[in-house]
Amino acid sequence: MEKSIHLDHLMLGVCYYPEHWPETLWQEDLRRMKALGIERVRVFEFAWNIVEPTEGVFDFDLFDKFLDLAYAEGMTVIMCTPTATPPAWLTTRYPETLNADKDGNLMHHGHRRHYNYNSPVYLRYVKKIVSVLAERYGQHPAIVGWQIDNEINCEMNEFYSEADRAAFRVFLEEKFVTLDALNDAIGARFWNQTYSEWNQVDLERHSLHGHCNPHMALLEKEFFSLSAIRFVKLQSDLLRPLVGQRFITTNGIFGHLDNERYTQECLDFMTYDSYPNFAYGQEGINGKRDGELGDRMWSMNLSRARALSPNFGVMEQQSGANGWDFSMLAPMPLPGQMRLWTMQAVANGADYISYFRWRTAPYGTEIYWHGLNDYANTPNRRLDEVAHIHRDFKKLTSVAGSKYVAKVALLNDYPNEWDGERDLWHGPLDHASRNAIFAASQHTHTPMDLLYLQPHMTAKDLRAYDMIFYPHPSILSDETATLLKEYCELGGKLVLGARTGYKDEYGRCPMRPMPGPAASLCGITVREYTLPHPAQQTEIRWNDDRLQALGFWETLIPNDGTETLAFFAGSYLDGECAMTRRAYANGGAAYYLGSGFAEATAVKLLAICGVLSPYDALVSCPADIELALRVSGEHQWFFLLNYTGEPQTVEIAAQMQDALTGALHQGEQTILPYDLLILQRS
Amino acid sequence: MEKSIHLDHLMLGVCYYPEHWPETLWQEDLRRMKALGIERVRVFEFAWNIVEPTEGVFDFDLFDKFLDLAYAEGMTVIMCTPTATPPAWLTTRYPETLNADKDGNLMHHGHRRHYNYNSPVYLRYVKKIVSVLAERYGQHPAIVGWQIDNEINCEMNEFYSEADRAAFRVFLEEKFVTLDALNDAIGARFWNQTYSEWNQVDLERHSLHGHCNPHMALLEKEFFSLSAIRFVKLQSDLLRPLVGQRFITTNGIFGHLDNERYTQECLDFMTYDSYPNFAYGQEGINGKRDGELGDRMWSMNLSRARALSPNFGVMEQQSGANGWDFSMLAPMPLPGQMRLWTMQAVANGADYISYFRWRTAPYGTEIYWHGLNDYANTPNRRLDEVAHIHRDFKKLTSVAGSKYVAKVALLNDYPNEWDGERDLWHGPLDHASRNAIFAASQHTHTPMDLLYLQPHMTAKDLRAYDMIFYPHPSILSDETATLLKEYCELGGKLVLGARTGYKDEYGRCPMRPMPGPAASLCGITVREYTLPHPAQQTEIRWNDDRLQALGFWETLIPNDGTETLAFFAGSYLDGECAMTRRAYANGGAAYYLGSGFAEATAVKLLAICGVLSPYDALVSCPADIELALRVSGEHQWFFLLNYTGEPQTVEIAAQMQDALTGALHQGEQTILPYDLLILQRS
Amino acid sequence: MEKSIHLDHLMLGVCYYPEHWPETLWQEDLRRMKALGIERVRVFEFAWNIVEPTEGVFDFDLFDKFLDLAYAEGMTVIMCTPTATPPAWLTTRYPETLNADKDGNLMHHGHRRHYNYNSPVYLRYVKKIVSVLAERYGQHPAIVGWQIDNEINCEMNEFYSEADRAAFRVFLEEKFVTLDALNDAIGARFWNQTYSEWNQVDLERHSLHGHCNPHMALLEKEFFSLSAIRFVKLQSDLLRPLVGQRFITTNGIFGHLDNERYTQECLDFMTYDSYPNFAYGQEGINGKRDGELGDRMWSMNLSRARALSPNFGVMEQQSGANGWDFSMLAPMPLPGQMRLWTMQAVANGADYISYFRWRTAPYGTEIYWHGLNDYANTPNRRLDEVAHIHRDFKKLTSVAGSKYVAKVALLNDYPNEWDGERDLWHGPLDHASRNAIFAASQHTHTPMDLLYLQPHMTAKDLRAYDMIFYPHPSILSDETATLLKEYCELGGKLVLGARTGYKDEYGRCPMRPMPGPAASLCGITVREYTLPHPAQQTEIRWNDDRLQALGFWETLIPNDGTETLAFFAGSYLDGECAMTRRAYANGGAAYYLGSGFAEATAVKLLAICGVLSPYDALVSCPADIELALRVSGEHQWFFLLNYTGEPQTVEIAAQMQDALTGALHQGEQTILPYDLLILQRS
Repeated sequence: MEKSIHLDHLMLGVCYYPEHWPETLWQEDLRRMKALGIERVRVFEFAWNIVEPTEGVFDFDLFDKFLDLAYAEGMTVIMCTPTATPPAWLTTRYPETLNADKDGNLMHHGHRRHYNYNSPVYLRYVKKIVSVLAERYGQHPAIVGWQIDNEINCEMNEFYSEADRAAFRVFLEEKFVTLDALNDAIGARFWNQTYSEWNQVDLERHSLHGHCNPHMALLEKEFFSLSAIRFVKLQSDLLRPLVGQRFITTNGIFGHLDNERYTQECLDFMTYDSYPNFAYGQEGINGKRDGELGDRMWSMNLSRARALSPNFGVMEQQSGANGWDFSMLAPMPLPGQMRLWTMQAVANGADYISYFRWRTAPYGTEIYWHGLNDYANTPNRRLDEVAHIHRDFKKLTSVAGSKYVAKVALLNDYPNEWDGERDLWHGPLDHASRNAIFAASQHTHTPMDLLYLQPHMTAKDLRAYDMIFYPHPSILSDETATLLKEYCELGGKLVLGARTGYKDEYGRCPMRPMPGPAASLCGITVREYTLPHPAQQTEIRWNDDRLQALGFWETLIPNDGTETLAFFAGSYLDGECAMTRRAYANGGAAYYLGSGFAEATAVKLLAICGVLSPYDALVSCPADIELALRVSGEHQWFFLLNYTGEPQTVEIAAQMQDALTGALHQGEQTILPYDLLILQRS
Repeated sequence: MEKSIHLDHLMLGVCYYPEHWPETLWQEDLRRMKALGIERVRVFEFAWNIVEPTEGVFDFDLFDKFLDLAYAEGMTVIMCTPTATPPAWLTTRYPETLNADKDGNLMHHGHRRHYNYNSPVYLRYVKKIVSVLAERYGQHPAIVGWQIDNEINCEMNEFYSEADRAAFRVFLEEKFVTLDALNDAIGARFWNQTYSEWNQVDLERHSLHGHCNPHMALLEKEFFSLSAIRFVKLQSDLLRPLVGQRFITTNGIFGHLDNERYTQECLDFMTYDSYPNFAYGQEGINGKRDGELGDRMWSMNLSRARALSPNFGVMEQQSGANGWDFSMLAPMPLPGQMRLWTMQAVANGADYISYFRWRTAPYGTEIYWHGLNDYANTPNRRLDEVAHIHRDFKKLTSVAGSKYVAKVALLNDYPNEWDGERDLWHGPLDHASRNAIFAASQHTHTPMDLLYLQPHMTAKDLRAYDMIFYPHPSILSDETATLLKEYCELGGKLVLGARTGYKDEYGRCPMRPMPGPAASLCGITVREYTLPHPAQQTEIRWNDDRLQALGFWETLIPNDGTETLAFFAGSYLDGECAMTRRAYANGGAAYYLGSGFAEATAVKLLAICGVLSPYDALVSCPADIELALRVSGEHQWFFLLNYTGEPQTVEIAAQMQDALTGALHQGEQTILPYDLLILQRS
Repeated sequence: MEKSIHLDHLMLGVCYYPEHWPETLWQEDLRRMKALGIERVRVFEFAWNIVEPTEGVFDFDLFDKFLDLAYAEGMTVIMCTPTATPPAWLTTRYPETLNADKDGNLMHHGHRRHYNYNSPVYLRYVKKIVSVLAERYGQHPAIVGWQIDNEINCEMNEFYSEADRAAFRVFLEEKFVTLDALNDAIGARFWNQTYSEWNQVDLERHSLHGHCNPHMALLEKEFFSLSAIRFVKLQSDLLRPLVGQRFITTNGIFGHLDNERYTQECLDFMTYDSYPNFAYGQEGINGKRDGELGDRMWSMNLSRARALSPNFGVMEQQSGANGWDFSMLAPMPLPGQMRLWTMQAVANGADYISYFRWRTAPYGTEIYWHGLNDYANTPNRRLDEVAHIHRDFKKLTSVAGSKYVAKVALLNDYPNEWDGERDLWHGPLDHASRNAIFAASQHTHTPMDLLYLQPHMTAKDLRAYDMIFYPHPSILSDETATLLKEYCELGGKLVLGARTGYKDEYGRCPMRPMPGPAASLCGITVREYTLPHPAQQTEIRWNDDRLQALGFWETLIPNDGTETLAFFAGSYLDGECAMTRRAYANGGAAYYLGSGFAEATAVKLLAICGVLSPYDALVSCPADIELALRVSGEHQWFFLLNYTGEPQTVEIAAQMQDALTGALHQGEQTILPYDLLILQRS
């Protein structure tokens, strides 16, 4: 079932905190929102105390008034469950509801999301507050949907409370039934880690240098994901009968969480929280560096949201400067950037854009996380920019429900993502290759989807794509290898890279030549491999090109019938086979690259697979422009986005209409800094 | 009441530890001190065990003997209370007397200052030992004064023991009376942090990523300061009736402490511990870097001491290389530097200089914190340098009691200082601007005082200064704004910078246009602001000058009658107003700069306010020379200090006398490396 | 008694884990080993659970079968005690057996070596398992020797469990008898750290900024060493009567352990674990940098093993790429490097080389710590390289038992090594000087031994060396000074450097001119000293050479009869004496350098002492070649090792035979990259 938001026009919303402001301000706020084209507010996600100020004492006055006012003013509302921030009265009385670190230190009051998913006490209180809210507001006419909790697994996606430890034992016992099976799965014979009683089994605890069994670490992440899903499902199951047709969603995409399963089992669709301004933050981790995509990288994150919900919402969209009191500092967006980032989300599949937040918080940790309004509540250019965006949206009504179109996919899966966090022979390699492949797709204007492998997927599902990159699936089952082979046989072009297939589902390396289950799929065997020191260099010679061999090197032995495409050059591996192609029926092929992917390598692979720059003949763009295409029936919208401070010139082959101005363009067209062009074709 | 040391001549002292040395060495040590001109020793600050080796068992033998000997040898003594290092017998029996970290880990034996200020048990023992000492030695003829504890809030100025937590609740209950008031002050509605019972309230505890409510964090610091003051006052109240006319002081200036209140309420005057050699330390944090003042920066610290006590003492003055066993490593002072740093203290208001320490510790953490004597106790050049200083001091007798003279002040206050520790939109900006302004005063020979705003201050008090920099008072009350306006109306020239007035007393940002209470004072409104990324650049065009816009940018809207002095240039803010001047009666004016202060900006402001380089006509110095002026009635002493390894030449306009040699100087005069010149005028 | 391995030929071994593989694979594995020339396997060091899966239930089936098979296949076995990894059933039931950090956090299951040496419970279980194993397998015909535990003090060499704390008190009470003596030894009067009851005494606990009494910190390390020795001796005493003539050893050399005493008291000889590939690791700490020796630095470690056992074994020799799952990543050795590193060990005194491990672990933390066989168990070049090494070994049979020959020694001792960990005025200086002196010996082909001072050593023992560097013995007793003087009087040439003799046995600095006990030995007094800031520079002028004065500067006053060799030049110390020589009878001399040692300074000292490049007349090598000499009676083997990627040319003066090919060489001979040449002379 497609888990999409279903809107008949591109819609604007905003996050609002009535409890932060005097009641006398509400009406003016709602009317000013409406004047800007904002049709929807999200409320309540941190407001538990407002309705239950002390245990069991409920006071609905504030939100009764607000919701009635919203209804009266014609504003629709997304209501939240407030479980992301349990009250002090609850955590003080029941510290077992708190999350803990590996050393057993509880995560006390002062932040958010400091609770755990498995405490029976917390679950009891969660059920209570969700039921009370759903009963009172489930049918409120202002409310159109519900958000569960807030940013599941944000802040912290590891859980080590005693409640989690107990639940982990149950999880393992259910999964493995016998200790022998568990011991075997985790390779417990290594370093004498065998368990002889279930009560010896535990999540990670304080240990020498923070070490733990790596296979148990992988099982932990599966458990964290399962715990989160159960926690959200508990709430959606409670809400469903009481909210009727109103949608249930939640916001953000975070780690240690099977978002596909979670969306399918608990939600009507996914909403994402999009903050491209992180790319300009002072803290460097997201800082824009040479050769990186900066704020344009958020299109990768938006592709991730699109994978969950082809038409998704952005529940929180950047509306000003960032900053917690002592972290994540970033400047005010430059003139135009807010609109650019809004259109980046739309281009990538969003139909609903809700800004975070209406007015900047006057206190608390997020005092510098700016809303549309500054503290002073006086006019500013960000409000003007929203008005501009609203004018744009009115020109783009029929974009709602249209689909982003891509013929290339970048495949991933959770076991490899989670295992790669600790496995430094795999994780950093995969991370670098994914970024390079995504950069190749961006710079060449080759639309690409991001896909997570799911149990129910068929080769036909995959064949929606002409080409699939699955860069480094170190954990690879025979079943998946078979699926991929079927994809090739259906004419799909598959590209795999180094370290494919050397691990089983528990992250163990079985006695099997590499690339394991991919050996017959690709028609090769790995002869020799190495994790090169950064100072070691070799190249890959592919026809006349010299490409970088990044991150890992494998020399390949092609089977009969497998073609050698490229060779190592210039190190002790000189002359060894570095890349192969095994042809399949229907034009299908399995490519194997014995290293990580450089951007240039990915471009060359796109080219030989015949999927490079599919719209170049219609509109030719410089690398600095993002091109995205949304299609609905006969209608096509080309979104061309300029993230740079320089004007960029595109070349339009055949006349197309400017969707915003109605003008007809052909030939050279200039896009101003931080501006955009939407060309319509039908 | 002026809290100054009152001496009739510049005096030398030294820190001495009779308990570290055989009794047989004492007399020789005292006589050698006297021979060097040292008239006073400080003793006892870490000697609790010596008089109370086990609980309740007292043994005064060692110090009875030493004090009697000191008296017999004509040496005066500063006695200390020994509460900085509670004995092992006390902390082992009563671990609740220890300080703790946020996770609850106690700070065990092995360092100093590991106790907390609020444990009733510790306070009981403190009262006991202070009473016992005061009763025994309060009237001892050798003793001229008392030091309480040692370096209050050094090592650690945060306290999280259970005793502190309990006292914090009492502090908040007294301050706010109701939980509603507290919840409101800390913006508890943000992230659902409302308290419904007092027992839920706490100092910071272990939390996710160390987060806490930022307003509570500010209240914590107020509490830490109050706790320290109460702790010192407890001791001074006990001492006062028993020590008669002898002075009570303590040493050092550290964080989370309202030093003004503390000096006024508990002490007769403040003494400072001056270690300019930190500037040459290996650890970098104080390392001398391009454009920084290095050891000359200690003049800023000495100005801070002067703000508390116009004539202060230096209880611990650098007397050799630094070093704990594994930190704070620094080399031996170069020949001349000890004398230079001594005169730096005198130039900045010190009348008493006590070296730390007589002889280098033969054991313990400070084994490399060198005293005047090396381990070997044989002659060395540092002892020779003290003899030289003593000869100098004899020429400077009448400097004692004279005052440092400045017509410019750099204003600060504790709420902003404390809030700026976590508030990264404000703290780093303020820090950089203060250093730039101080550097401007140093390099242009414009003497400057450092002032902390106190509740009792009047506009007339401030008007002692022709010009005041108050760079970035983000927390600003209407009362303070009124005070500053009165200052301008009295003819004072006030300079404010970006981020002024955007917070209230609890660090919240109220709904009010910036710069809040300073808006009418300066006649402006802030239109737009940003915390620029370091890679973002803009300039400020002020007449023909191009100045750096550092740290923060605000564009200003001047009211009618407010003059625009400068404009942003070269970014998206190009052409916007960057600096204004509102004129007041009597030549007063309020300047507002919409950014942080570069040194050149501060120099230009000093110039247009007519206070730049006031003594240039008398003696013209290169930037590398510090100029300080001490005045007593008709007498003036110009201290000219050369911190560099190069000779520096000054130009003396009219003949003045060399206070050390008696020579008459006019015209060019050379000051050798690490040497100085004191010119007398009367 | 010489604690050497006694073999009649160079022997190959391998580490094997029968419990990791199906029983069906064992025979093939053993036969393939034999085919490669591997004669011995080490087993069992992490296999406790295999024989005691739950408490008191023993199951010998697996190892009975394996050992019988090994015997049948003619494979000899080194059996281990499995105490490095206590079972989960033990540590879960008795958490007091775990090690703890200073904060009291226990080191839980998940790593290895997480136990402590002093828990009575753990010692009881250790005795039980060792007894059971020794009784069952002590006389097994396949077993030729025993390894106790695994890598004593690896992973962690600090112990802070409650059991350790109790044992530490006993240790101190035995050592000092009275608290007065302890308080005096640790300088407890500094900062009031005096103890009045034994129960107040403790190992380090959580404290402010991790500070502790530095003298207590030194005693802690003595205690850690003693605890480890007692733990190993407990096991060797249990084994000895039950294993007959079979040898007892253990592997690796780690910190906080008196390896000399430990080898003498508990072992028949020492084996080392040699992983030169760390030099190519990605983590930088061991990364090869300009001017450093890289993998050649392992010859220093091998010299350390040789100091313990003139003929030693390598229990674990690099056999592939390194890597734990998230640390210590390093690439596959280049072709030739495994053989080079094997010969490096042999050149430096090893007669037994056992690779770690037969096949790469298919699971667990060491999943990337590659064995000879890859996961796939198919042929690879590392196996071919072992076959090559075996062919070499057969040519080198008589090298077994021959001795490495050096006439220069680099002296060290444990108190200085341990004290230098915290003492930053000494430790880094000593570390840098040792590396420079070792590099000088390597680059000039001057074989050098590494020697730790032991209580029983006599001047005659030392006189085995013509020259001894003892770079910076800050802790120096009068007894040692006397020993060194006797060495000089016997004609030895001794070189000391800055900071010699300023501390006593407890790390205190007594009242005595520097260099303390070395003053009369060297005929000097130190006038002035400093720990220079890195930006401070001075040179040492020695005849026409200008040498760097590194790390510390001391100016010297030579006594009558002491010769000044060199002077400081170019700083405030210009012209002061920097190096001296006191002549002794029989050509002996004591040199003193008032700074740290640069490599060039060490070379010049080797030259004037007449010991530089002793074999240059026979074979002249470039600096990049390591030269080592092993001698047995009339037989000499010159090992010439090329660690570089470039061919290196040596010049052979008189004809010598190539020990591997039998060819006769004279004149220029080229050694290929990562290759070697062994010249035989008899």
